Amino acid sequence: MPTDFKRKVPRKPKIERFTAADVARAAGVSISAVSRAFTPNASIAKATKARVLSAADRLGYHPNPLARGLITQRSGMVALLMTEVTNPFYPTVLETFARALSDRGKQVMLFTPAEDEPLESLLPQAISYGVEGVVITSATLSSKMQAACANAPVPVILFNRTLDCGEVSAVCCDNEAGGRAIAQFFAQRGRRRPAFVAGLPGASTSLHRERGFIAGVLEASLPAPIRVEGQFTFDGGMQAAAELLAMDQPPDAIFAANDIMALGVLDGIRRVGGLGVPDDIWVVGFDDIAAAAWPSFDLTTFRQPINRMIAETLRLLDSAETEVPALPSTVLVPGRLIERGSTGAPLPLTP
Amino acid sequence: MPTDFKRKVPRKPKIERFTAADVARAAGVSISAVSRAFTPNASIAKATKARVLSAADRLGYHPNPLARGLITQRSGMVALLMTEVTNPFYPTVLETFARALSDRGKQVMLFTPAEDEPLESLLPQAISYGVEGVVITSATLSSKMQAACANAPVPVILFNRTLDCGEVSAVCCDNEAGGRAIAQFFAQRGRRRPAFVAGLPGASTSLHRERGFIAGVLEASLPAPIRVEGQFTFDGGMQAAAELLAMDQPPDAIFAANDIMALGVLDGIRRVGGLGVPDDIWVVGFDDIAAAAWPSFDLTTFRQPINRMIAETLRLLDSAETEVPALPSTVLVPGRLIERGSTGAPLPLTP
Repeated sequence: MPTDFKRKVPRKPKIERFTAADVARAAGVSISAVSRAFTPNASIAKATKARVLSAADRLGYHPNPLARGLITQRSGMVALLMTEVTNPFYPTVLETFARALSDRGKQVMLFTPAEDEPLESLLPQAISYGVEGVVITSATLSSKMQAACANAPVPVILFNRTLDCGEVSAVCCDNEAGGRAIAQFFAQRGRRRPAFVAGLPGASTSLHRERGFIAGVLEASLPAPIRVEGQFTFDGGMQAAAELLAMDQPPDAIFAANDIMALGVLDGIRRVGGLGVPDDIWVVGFDDIAAAAWPSFDLTTFRQPINRMIAETLRLLDSAETEVPALPSTVLVPGRLIERGSTGAPLPLTP
Repeated sequence: MPTDFKRKVPRKPKIERFTAADVARAAGVSISAVSRAFTPNASIAKATKARVLSAADRLGYHPNPLARGLITQRSGMVALLMTEVTNPFYPTVLETFARALSDRGKQVMLFTPAEDEPLESLLPQAISYGVEGVVITSATLSSKMQAACANAPVPVILFNRTLDCGEVSAVCCDNEAGGRAIAQFFAQRGRRRPAFVAGLPGASTSLHRERGFIAGVLEASLPAPIRVEGQFTFDGGMQAAAELLAMDQPPDAIFAANDIMALGVLDGIRRVGGLGVPDDIWVVGFDDIAAAAWPSFDLTTFRQPINRMIAETLRLLDSAETEVPALPSTVLVPGRLIERGSTGAPLPLTP
């Protein structure tokens, strides 16, 4: 790399900026046709569009969505505020969300708090960029943040969490139904001593899964679940397993409030030794992340329907633009139990 | 949810838009002080900044970075074009990158191709949003895309891949040195039959890791490595293991070109049965993703220094703004071997 070769010359010739009018002239079409060629799903003949794009390519013309956004108040950007990082469920959400927006000609701006920065400071930042909507995935929300969401000048949607006050729209898997389904599954298959590994205190997902699980367990006349905490992390799950196995009467069926903790529980049980999965203890998680299906874990879990949850989120964003009034609404999407080896289902044949 | 309760009334009163001048008046400072209060790392007294922010909060004022960006040509946004999704290394990159930008008062716009959309179409899209720079993480790049990167009107940096032509700046772990280090490690510890599990054809990372590995193996007078392919996926790793173990003389040391394949190799070896890790076969990966350290895998791997790689990427973006001419440069960052149980290191004590 010839880094000693520095001269005061520009790196490359300054790009000449062509306008939509230049492209229209070059393609022999109207300026409005140029605009429609660059608008996803706009009505325009295929051949015309091809002629415009080819002319734009020759001239190096790119429409400027920001300048357009300042006029139309539609920037084409949706903000995603994300605080969860250790849980592999969220990268999948991010990726699915980015693709779904991309299909509509929109883009995601990702906001994650800098170290020691509160989530609160990100919302006004996102709004200042002129985003059309804000989607928040965060296990916990301060009451100040809740108020800020309720009063934001653009639609705000909570993803995978709800507020009891109902003042902010939310899209969530039906966590309570999921917890109850797992309890019924344990009871029907003859499990007698259920345990629950909770996630972060204050997380609505963990709370609702636990509520449903307890209700289901009691309805089935099983004893109330033993309860330990796992912080929604792999290491937390390992420690929870150690705690549970050190008890006089260890559980015979463990429901961990998310998959990454459940994987930690499985490795924790292996590390302690003495008791085996599924012969002595069953383990069930929640999410269905990719690693749940890996043979080393082969984890039974309650699958969250990410695609449908994201479709519902986009629908809420759209309706906030068109419906008056758009009252805050909570959408609960049903998930389903995926049985695998950690509850005795046989391993599928080699792919 | 009272969805039947729809009236033609606005959802909430229209937000009154205050200007920087209003905030300056309310805080008793100059308009320039308001501007500096909202500019990261700008010179302003702490007390003045606090007074401005509090006044802005009262008035609900947010600076508009897009309007500012159209004037200053600095939008505060950096585009990340990302195509890899199955590999958990990339979400970590994304998250680290977003935080690093956030620390500088900038934001990441994430672009992922819609289904069947070529990566090529994303670059002009990103540029049209007025981003200050573009970072691309993609295993493979078409030659058309390479030319587009070299001619883009904003700095473009390849992350975790390089081009042999050297026409586009790149930041990469020193993959060749990593492959060679793993070969030397195998040879010094008495392994005799090395194997390599390749990633995607055309991926520079896989190619360079293999090149270094072969060189190191031959320098140590070991036989040339057996070669199978694993597509950079977990399932590909499992199938690679099945292929290797079906050979007359299976290898005694496998280097998989990334961690997710190496985890698949470990589970594949378990599924085939008969031979054990590390007693009969050693397995080494590349990346050091979180799951590599999980007890079920306990994978020896070559750690990529993500933080340093991202710091170098930001440095290249900065220097492209200030240095004339900013010649394309390739930065290779050294990684290091992390020994774990898959090559015989004892499992650490329970945390």
